[in-house]
Amino acid sequence: MTAILHGNIIHAPQFGTLEMIPNGYLVLEDGVLAECCAALPQRYAGLPVTDYGNALIMPSFADLHLHAPQYPMLGMGMDLPLLEWLDAYTFRTEARFADLDYARRVYRQLAQDLISSGTTRVSAFASRHTDAALVLMEELERAGVAGYVGKVNMDRNAGPSQEETGESVAETLRWLENCRFELVKPILTPRFTPSCSDRLMEELGKIARERDLPVQSHLSENTGEIAWVRELHPGCGQYWETYDQYGLWKERTLMAHCVHSDAREQEAMVRAGVWAVHCAASNVNLCSGTAPVRELLENGVQVALGSDIAGGDQLAMNRVAVMSIRASKLKSMETGKPFLTVPEAYYLSSTAGHLYFGGGAGFQAGHKLHAVVVDDSAMPEPARELTLAERFERCIYLMEKRHIKAVYSEGVNRI
Amino acid sequence: MTAILHGNIIHAPQFGTLEMIPNGYLVLEDGVLAECCAALPQRYAGLPVTDYGNALIMPSFADLHLHAPQYPMLGMGMDLPLLEWLDAYTFRTEARFADLDYARRVYRQLAQDLISSGTTRVSAFASRHTDAALVLMEELERAGVAGYVGKVNMDRNAGPSQEETGESVAETLRWLENCRFELVKPILTPRFTPSCSDRLMEELGKIARERDLPVQSHLSENTGEIAWVRELHPGCGQYWETYDQYGLWKERTLMAHCVHSDAREQEAMVRAGVWAVHCAASNVNLCSGTAPVRELLENGVQVALGSDIAGGDQLAMNRVAVMSIRASKLKSMETGKPFLTVPEAYYLSSTAGHLYFGGGAGFQAGHKLHAVVVDDSAMPEPARELTLAERFERCIYLMEKRHIKAVYSEGVNRI
Repeated sequence: MTAILHGNIIHAPQFGTLEMIPNGYLVLEDGVLAECCAALPQRYAGLPVTDYGNALIMPSFADLHLHAPQYPMLGMGMDLPLLEWLDAYTFRTEARFADLDYARRVYRQLAQDLISSGTTRVSAFASRHTDAALVLMEELERAGVAGYVGKVNMDRNAGPSQEETGESVAETLRWLENCRFELVKPILTPRFTPSCSDRLMEELGKIARERDLPVQSHLSENTGEIAWVRELHPGCGQYWETYDQYGLWKERTLMAHCVHSDAREQEAMVRAGVWAVHCAASNVNLCSGTAPVRELLENGVQVALGSDIAGGDQLAMNRVAVMSIRASKLKSMETGKPFLTVPEAYYLSSTAGHLYFGGGAGFQAGHKLHAVVVDDSAMPEPARELTLAERFERCIYLMEKRHIKAVYSEGVNRI
Repeated sequence: MTAILHGNIIHAPQFGTLEMIPNGYLVLEDGVLAECCAALPQRYAGLPVTDYGNALIMPSFADLHLHAPQYPMLGMGMDLPLLEWLDAYTFRTEARFADLDYARRVYRQLAQDLISSGTTRVSAFASRHTDAALVLMEELERAGVAGYVGKVNMDRNAGPSQEETGESVAETLRWLENCRFELVKPILTPRFTPSCSDRLMEELGKIARERDLPVQSHLSENTGEIAWVRELHPGCGQYWETYDQYGLWKERTLMAHCVHSDAREQEAMVRAGVWAVHCAASNVNLCSGTAPVRELLENGVQVALGSDIAGGDQLAMNRVAVMSIRASKLKSMETGKPFLTVPEAYYLSSTAGHLYFGGGAGFQAGHKLHAVVVDDSAMPEPARELTLAERFERCIYLMEKRHIKAVYSEGVNRI
């Protein structure tokens, strides 16, 4: 089936540049982008057009690091030191996901919140609970959010929900057996080095290898954590080696934070094809620091953005992109390196994440459409006619759900 | 007339502390708060109650620094260096306010946006245009936003809208003649030292003295500006003295930013009773730095918050409070001084501003009610019953217009 969308088209196929087609067309064949063009080719004449008028059509957002079971604690405990925050909120909140009815309600609300904010791809941590992880996958799929979900593994230093090692492995296998979803696939998810024993890491590495599964975890978020990892693994020179020694440091492994990754750790990322997920709001909220994003990019590390709820307090990825700009401006005042521009931050919050999942670079033909349609007509009346680039920038800064008129995920409008 | 409101009452009468009355009552007599209590006194029995049920009732917000004619450029030009931003956006946008129809439309939208975001008191810069400044006052009054508005004075280094000195003074007097509003009063507004000649400053100082008018301006926002002021005024040891020498540095003068105010400048503020208006979002967006808010407070400077649109990109003062927390966390990582907690940032965004205008400290009897009613029932379902303090914190982080059920300004619900 052919579908034709009309509107002002903006995308960022490369880092740092925007491509714009005012009054352009997107032609879909069974949800797959066939054409992104300024004038509709003759062969489509006469077919019905979904006309978004003067609205902006841009690739949707991707959130490459979020803790789904922390959604209930969004915006709370932010005055607490990290360890107290973990005890008072994180561990207790996650423990609630043993209750599948509760999990269903929260995950349904989260999935709805994601899609209506324009986020169509995610890589999410669930809790340790196998069945709740499956519920999360089901609810994301139902809402039309694609990507990865990981049942969390943690058999040490992990509060009341801690697993036994054997149980953690067996439950991971049971979870993998039951992952039968079209849009949402499994990703192995050791919580982070301090909460996974060597034996667990070894088993997960084996599963990753045997089943060719991707991996996500945390890396070098704050200095206390790094010191702790060093204590736990005196044999490893650097944090990343604790993952590497068990085969978890590999092509497409997602590592959240990398706030304190030095040149050597960054080199190891490039060599292995590991991605850094930058979570600016969380890093500030938890006083972790400001990640050296410009340096990571200059050194060739692949970077995407994450909301990291509930260390981060905002689910909407345009707000996360803005926060990454703010953090980079503060970093820039310190290092002199250029801050992230709006097109750059947008690329990291959209194109980069889609590429991670094998999607297109912007509106690239041959890929299922992931797009958000934004009507900015209710934003403040400008003093003169705005360029499309200005309207785009304003949307990144000001966009709220009420401005979003359609969200296409995997070729289908989901709202 | 007696009005009784019922709900969960939270306020911050002192810096750093919250007072809470679950299921409490506010009793108003002709809009003036008579009682803030846990149980309704017998004498009110039988009177109708406006029942906000499980919603939170808290004092509204005050925005002590915003540029009203920059509302049309919200969220734009944020990648530009300051001077290019001023040329490409600020001066041109402000110049549009010679057109009173345009001014009317924009200021009506702004006033609506303010009140529906829970901001009931402001101190706003208008543009240089006398009649547009009066339109702004009229539209704020119509929407129920109280406070100050200043026709801007600028007779040098001020782009296409620059005034002649004599014209600037004459127009200021004409503006003052026509300020006949109940809720909105005039405040003298020399833009900042670099854009006001000595003669203009002298005349404004005379008007301030003769008519006992308050003053607002900018101070020590960034290092380039400070160097420029030093060049322009080699006779003044510090930036603040350029205001002081003309009688503009006095009790209740509002000085926006104070990012780079040192101990001596801070002392001068305390001595004169000058207030610092902290604008965290703007200071980060424009790469000005992070203001030493904790130090200002410790030194006894009176501090309130400002959105500083459109250097700031967010009008909602709860978001501005959150941004001040984030900025203070980054400052804290650098200085070791404690960051602003949620109750502290709320105090600065609410109580401090109301006190500036002579309002009550929180829900203090004898003052007209300024309050916002927030229904948090659509926020993520929590993992356990939340305390009122937790719900309050979550509202500061997550509140959007759709959660706001009522906004009382000067004793009347305005939405």
